[in-house]
Amino acid sequence: MKKIILCDIGNTTADIYENGVCQKMILSEFKPELLAGEVWYISVNCVLSERLESFQNWHNCATLIDWEKYYPTMGIDRIMVCEAIDDGVIVDAGSAITVDVMRDGVYQGGFISLGLRAAQEAYARLSPALAMSFNFEVDLTIMAKNTPDAITIGFLAPLIQSIGSYGDSIYVTGGDAHLFSSFLKEAIVDETLIFKGMKKLIDKGTQC
Amino acid sequence: MKKIILCDIGNTTADIYENGVCQKMILSEFKPELLAGEVWYISVNCVLSERLESFQNWHNCATLIDWEKYYPTMGIDRIMVCEAIDDGVIVDAGSAITVDVMRDGVYQGGFISLGLRAAQEAYARLSPALAMSFNFEVDLTIMAKNTPDAITIGFLAPLIQSIGSYGDSIYVTGGDAHLFSSFLKEAIVDETLIFKGMKKLIDKGTQC
Repeated sequence: MKKIILCDIGNTTADIYENGVCQKMILSEFKPELLAGEVWYISVNCVLSERLESFQNWHNCATLIDWEKYYPTMGIDRIMVCEAIDDGVIVDAGSAITVDVMRDGVYQGGFISLGLRAAQEAYARLSPALAMSFNFEVDLTIMAKNTPDAITIGFLAPLIQSIGSYGDSIYVTGGDAHLFSSFLKEAIVDETLIFKGMKKLIDKGTQC
Repeated sequence: MKKIILCDIGNTTADIYENGVCQKMILSEFKPELLAGEVWYISVNCVLSERLESFQNWHNCATLIDWEKYYPTMGIDRIMVCEAIDDGVIVDAGSAITVDVMRDGVYQGGFISLGLRAAQEAYARLSPALAMSFNFEVDLTIMAKNTPDAITIGFLAPLIQSIGSYGDSIYVTGGDAHLFSSFLKEAIVDETLIFKGMKKLIDKGTQC
């Protein structure tokens, strides 16, 4: 298969993956018409998506998805990280934390938790007494006896316990992957999971 | 012991408990000087607390607390619900959800989760795609395949699982007690737990 460029377009940035290297660009400085070669992309940015449809060398990965496997309102980035893994729990720790389970390449379902920043902001909004950072050094197996530990354990302990309860291999990706995986000792951190999923889907789709 | 009135003062309302009946009053309409008889209160409202100190018949329950048992920044309402129970997990489902464990009357520690409304608002802030109500009919043991279930399970399943994992009796109180306890079949709902804790503490304190 010939070399391709992969592109993950968000609302403020675009991640371009080429030759094993990922480059983040601010959308206002992003000129898709300058990218030479075949580009496969995913996009949550409707305005840009529409523009890209007129480019001959830009191809939307959404067209390759077997939507029967997932559900209609499921985020495309979430589907891509699932496509990367045949068996395991996939945790995408970004602005939200999505947790999905794949078995034999079949999507089993999942859930959406708040991201680390969103959770901390929500505590801060509840009360000035809870406006503090999580303690990422805390032992999640204890019961807290101070406020920073009480909110960290309150948010993270049930979530980490739940992720571990599936008994499958755990893959962690997303902006907070390293921070989050410090509580999941056996987890495999892979920041390129989304591109691996895109590549796998493209390989399947273009071979047919 | 002679009859007393119990009062739980928040930032916008005061709950007055007398002869087994609880009455909620808006603070702007609340006239503490008109309450005849001995009143024991807890308050998170510093301005009102200061005023109450000058009333001979108003007594602050905070003075009865053995602070060594708890921790200095722990909310007084949270301490009171703990005082009500000698052995068990105490869940106070209000604007925040506090979860605390008592064993043989000794505080073991606990954690603070977001309240149901705070969690739903935090999801809504993350994305318009997540701005929806929780599905309180959902089966928390499944993996979600639609967005309302994915956020409900994402927030509630780990939390409920965690509360159940202590293996103790579960007591649920607070404004969302009934909604929350629908997921904790064995739980005892007791909306007067805070007053039971105050009463127990007063009985102990005034007997000494």
